[in-house]
Amino acid sequence: MTKKKVAIIGATGYTGSELVRILVNHPEVEITMITSETYAGKNITDVHPFLQGIADFKLHSVEDIDDANADLVFLALPHGVSMDFVKRFQNKPFKIVDLSGDFRLQTPEVYEEWYQKAHSFSQGFSLAKFGLPELFSEEIKQSNLVANPGCFPTGAILGAAPLLVGDYIEASPLIVDSKTGVTGAGIKSKPVNLYSNVNDNFKAYGLKKHRHTIEIQEVLGAAAGNDIAVQFTPHLLPIDRGILSTIYAKPKKSITDNDLQEIYSKFYAAKPFVRLRNQVPATKDVRGSNFCDIYTTYDDRTGMIIVISAIDNLVKGAAGQAVHNMNLMLGLDESAGLNLVPVQP
Amino acid sequence: MTKKKVAIIGATGYTGSELVRILVNHPEVEITMITSETYAGKNITDVHPFLQGIADFKLHSVEDIDDANADLVFLALPHGVSMDFVKRFQNKPFKIVDLSGDFRLQTPEVYEEWYQKAHSFSQGFSLAKFGLPELFSEEIKQSNLVANPGCFPTGAILGAAPLLVGDYIEASPLIVDSKTGVTGAGIKSKPVNLYSNVNDNFKAYGLKKHRHTIEIQEVLGAAAGNDIAVQFTPHLLPIDRGILSTIYAKPKKSITDNDLQEIYSKFYAAKPFVRLRNQVPATKDVRGSNFCDIYTTYDDRTGMIIVISAIDNLVKGAAGQAVHNMNLMLGLDESAGLNLVPVQP
Amino acid sequence: MTKKKVAIIGATGYTGSELVRILVNHPEVEITMITSETYAGKNITDVHPFLQGIADFKLHSVEDIDDANADLVFLALPHGVSMDFVKRFQNKPFKIVDLSGDFRLQTPEVYEEWYQKAHSFSQGFSLAKFGLPELFSEEIKQSNLVANPGCFPTGAILGAAPLLVGDYIEASPLIVDSKTGVTGAGIKSKPVNLYSNVNDNFKAYGLKKHRHTIEIQEVLGAAAGNDIAVQFTPHLLPIDRGILSTIYAKPKKSITDNDLQEIYSKFYAAKPFVRLRNQVPATKDVRGSNFCDIYTTYDDRTGMIIVISAIDNLVKGAAGQAVHNMNLMLGLDESAGLNLVPVQP
Amino acid sequence: MTKKKVAIIGATGYTGSELVRILVNHPEVEITMITSETYAGKNITDVHPFLQGIADFKLHSVEDIDDANADLVFLALPHGVSMDFVKRFQNKPFKIVDLSGDFRLQTPEVYEEWYQKAHSFSQGFSLAKFGLPELFSEEIKQSNLVANPGCFPTGAILGAAPLLVGDYIEASPLIVDSKTGVTGAGIKSKPVNLYSNVNDNFKAYGLKKHRHTIEIQEVLGAAAGNDIAVQFTPHLLPIDRGILSTIYAKPKKSITDNDLQEIYSKFYAAKPFVRLRNQVPATKDVRGSNFCDIYTTYDDRTGMIIVISAIDNLVKGAAGQAVHNMNLMLGLDESAGLNLVPVQP
Repeated sequence: MTKKKVAIIGATGYTGSELVRILVNHPEVEITMITSETYAGKNITDVHPFLQGIADFKLHSVEDIDDANADLVFLALPHGVSMDFVKRFQNKPFKIVDLSGDFRLQTPEVYEEWYQKAHSFSQGFSLAKFGLPELFSEEIKQSNLVANPGCFPTGAILGAAPLLVGDYIEASPLIVDSKTGVTGAGIKSKPVNLYSNVNDNFKAYGLKKHRHTIEIQEVLGAAAGNDIAVQFTPHLLPIDRGILSTIYAKPKKSITDNDLQEIYSKFYAAKPFVRLRNQVPATKDVRGSNFCDIYTTYDDRTGMIIVISAIDNLVKGAAGQAVHNMNLMLGLDESAGLNLVPVQP
Repeated sequence: MTKKKVAIIGATGYTGSELVRILVNHPEVEITMITSETYAGKNITDVHPFLQGIADFKLHSVEDIDDANADLVFLALPHGVSMDFVKRFQNKPFKIVDLSGDFRLQTPEVYEEWYQKAHSFSQGFSLAKFGLPELFSEEIKQSNLVANPGCFPTGAILGAAPLLVGDYIEASPLIVDSKTGVTGAGIKSKPVNLYSNVNDNFKAYGLKKHRHTIEIQEVLGAAAGNDIAVQFTPHLLPIDRGILSTIYAKPKKSITDNDLQEIYSKFYAAKPFVRLRNQVPATKDVRGSNFCDIYTTYDDRTGMIIVISAIDNLVKGAAGQAVHNMNLMLGLDESAGLNLVPVQP
Repeated sequence: MTKKKVAIIGATGYTGSELVRILVNHPEVEITMITSETYAGKNITDVHPFLQGIADFKLHSVEDIDDANADLVFLALPHGVSMDFVKRFQNKPFKIVDLSGDFRLQTPEVYEEWYQKAHSFSQGFSLAKFGLPELFSEEIKQSNLVANPGCFPTGAILGAAPLLVGDYIEASPLIVDSKTGVTGAGIKSKPVNLYSNVNDNFKAYGLKKHRHTIEIQEVLGAAAGNDIAVQFTPHLLPIDRGILSTIYAKPKKSITDNDLQEIYSKFYAAKPFVRLRNQVPATKDVRGSNFCDIYTTYDDRTGMIIVISAIDNLVKGAAGQAVHNMNLMLGLDESAGLNLVPVQP
Repeated sequence: MTKKKVAIIGATGYTGSELVRILVNHPEVEITMITSETYAGKNITDVHPFLQGIADFKLHSVEDIDDANADLVFLALPHGVSMDFVKRFQNKPFKIVDLSGDFRLQTPEVYEEWYQKAHSFSQGFSLAKFGLPELFSEEIKQSNLVANPGCFPTGAILGAAPLLVGDYIEASPLIVDSKTGVTGAGIKSKPVNLYSNVNDNFKAYGLKKHRHTIEIQEVLGAAAGNDIAVQFTPHLLPIDRGILSTIYAKPKKSITDNDLQEIYSKFYAAKPFVRLRNQVPATKDVRGSNFCDIYTTYDDRTGMIIVISAIDNLVKGAAGQAVHNMNLMLGLDESAGLNLVPVQP
């Protein structure tokens, strides 16, 4: 069988190298090109020695993209940069999975408000589908441009969607208290990811205005069929990978733990990467894998529902989900190449 | 000047050794006895070599307590054990700071409900004062028995008290999403503090029924003058020391960041260990010190107040606060011996 | 094609669960039984929730072993326990890979000296082959009992063997300064793997008498064809997985970096899991994978050779190497199921 | 009593802020100025919020130095920058402790060879004393310019000096295998201190040519009275603070553990910051303190001596030792202000 051909634009960042890590063992896809403007001409193993003997691929300039003969291209580029490539590639014969935030929101206006930046390709918004396969697999299959969800939104939306779709909770702010590993801040050295600023430390950041707030709010609002408010607070964990979100919601009427389990089981039936847990999940339970682990409970003392979700931000929150989207877009089995067992301990 | 004499019962656990770390440099107090039933006869440096040359003290059995001639005794014992010593010491000439949870709650009945254990000295409840100096310094000065607050309650109560005392927030559940370092689980080896269960990992625990819930709720309810509900969710951080609590509350009426700063400044005026911050605090900003750092903000998009507090669970959340209480009980300057600069990085 | 059948005795420890992690994706092998005397009757996901949806296997008692119809059995048991099972299984129709230290040394006498324990099955010594495939693949293929090497010996022997086999270095003590992750101490909670004893900390241990000393010395001595002395000093790193060994040796005559590269390239030609590096390796470069990364250099200022090797102690140092041995013993491709890409970051 | 006045040039780096942490509690010294060219005009708490309420000091430009009326000035500046300030300050009325590497070596020629940089003030070499108080306290007391030792050299020299001064070991290369925390790389963000490059990772670096090699070799050679060769290999630990050095030496004649203890006890008698340990030390045993912990043993199987030393690189390896030097230079008690208890856990 002929393998599908894919290229990765921006292969040396964390999401790019994670795509390589996953795709080298994908049974039906081959990487025909990887690019990096910074390191073009070098080998990716010069930048990421862990890939020696596994992916001794030369890094190209994106100018060479046509030589890839790609069926699908991953854009693993920073926010604000990706949009120019989507524009530039709009008439190319390949499909695109864009891992940036540039096409995740509903309108350019909302984008500009939350990203504080003009958008260069507003036509893209009508083409792009939000690539959360558990909610939108049919749209994704038909699409040529998929906006891969943000890491925080992936965990938050999967955690809360069943409650909103089923109209079980009040419109009072949904509280999403999230904690993320450091790789979410990217591979470039800066104070936020300086070792001694993170190690043996913990803090909140981006209060009230983190860009993922609006992404969560838009998708969950659409799921609910009405406007909702999301109070999203990210925190920085001294770990490499992983996001754990603790979600607090007030139910419209009395509910039980059994009800919650039934609601979630039904909602995620036949979804291979959601694991409903009967213990509280830990980020390490999903590390290196494409799983989203979810735990739900109701506190009748306070009348609140608590939902906890855990993902690996680089896999289910980025590269793994991108491969899942690729599988859907290329007509492959949705789980192909994603049999990644969590690395624990 | 004659120094006051103190003894530490249970000196080899984390709070016990932290008391030693602090008290060896206290200008007006000397340690005249430390005890450990497990290691009686050995030197504390056999258990904690970091104290070599600093506190080469012999560990006694508690049976020797009268030889200490103590003005004040610290009980650094497990919950459920401490109560027996408080009972046994009730006619001794020394004052007591009890670092366990045995006398923090309002009645033996509440204790038994949340600790799932019969209480052996219910008379102690009327004698014990809750040792949070920022709220109760006058009662503490008059008391012979102080119940040193729990680590989570210290950060949560200091974070929320100004809002409840001033009647600024709704009675809907106060959400306290807390994250703690591992030393909170004690020095005894068990799966919860096994390195590879914690390192590069993060999870919630004790949902809905952690014992500190009721401690927070009782003290804040009393501060508010009416019953409140607290939704408290602890999480385990891969760090040694530190608790960060993110608190969500709905104000009764519109409020601003300036209002909040004014409310907190007034409430904590002349409190030497509360630092009101204009940036989001991190646990490492207070590591090794007796500070509680607090940040407040209002989100007018959602109509919610967010308060973040940070403490070192072994200092402000245990041994430092115990020394603070001791200072008050012995008539010393409240800050004596507590000029501990955070160790950062 | 019919898959080979394997069983894992002692599946809930770190090496046992790592065998499960690797074998569930092995294309030519199926796990037909896993055992645990402690948890028999439970599911392995009760102990290791990260395996939910991947390996929802029941844990048996070893009494059920015949039901496994196994072609090969892994013994992932503590030292001193494993020997009894090798004895008990000596007439069983399956081959054995023993991951303990019980059959790695040359004689029961040496075992008893270094392990301070009587050996219960001295006949096993003549049957067992030392399972380091890079040196002994032919013997392993013919064997029914393979003693899987210790974690430290794997890295140390692979690092030094080319120098000793080729007679390039002096007999003065070979210095092996090794640093290991915490999982080497096993899954049972004890002070050595207590989080706060390890985190933000580093120390040496087992000076002069660690049991792996003799294992390294015997194998390298045999490789050299004469007695050698090994000064082996292990240290404990605040990481989960990984061993880095820094080896110091005095060459018999002047040598260059190029000479060293040539010696090692020739020695490890066609060895799929040794990666000769031209940068200094890091433990994370091999984390989760079966690679041993090696770097060599000569310091003409001091006249010393320095060799650095890095492995994942749970993979190349235990479960991965065991699967490699299994592949050889069952006549499979030696790399089957071991296409594990390092998880980095 | 009038306090002595000191200034810190370059107060916002790790050694600068550590000097502030220590000096704010020094009983006989006051900080009259701190400087930073980058942050001049701001408060140090803007850069290091952990100092809020403790050291709310304005950051000056070094141009203001005369206003400090300093008795002594600390230069906490990068290598290659410090020399210009020593030159510029040569006629100032204050003494200088230079924490950089610019005046630690014996000649400008050696400096230029190992630092690959021209030296701008070669006259300084004859003025500067090497500030290791355990070896050179008399010279330090008389000096106006002290070159504070490097972090690695401090631990290595203190570990090996008694053996070389007493002529107990062979001239064959002294092997110093050292492991350091990340703060040794400074506060500026770069790949070497990027969190995910360090966390759960370990590697060697600077093989054969690290600048501290020559510093160790020169000082130990002078102590021995003849040339020696040092094989120094640094490694990077995933910890903030701490250096552990494992030193291997061949004795000239047979020796015992008791002999070693006697040699070291005599050598370090009355040295308040060296703790001779009868267990293997850990870096956390000295964290935050000015101690150097040393353990010695002899392996009669191999005929080698092993010495292990542990320090906190920011305290005994930098700021604490600088304060120790200051105490000697200003005629204060050598331990004044250095009663820092290790922070453990």
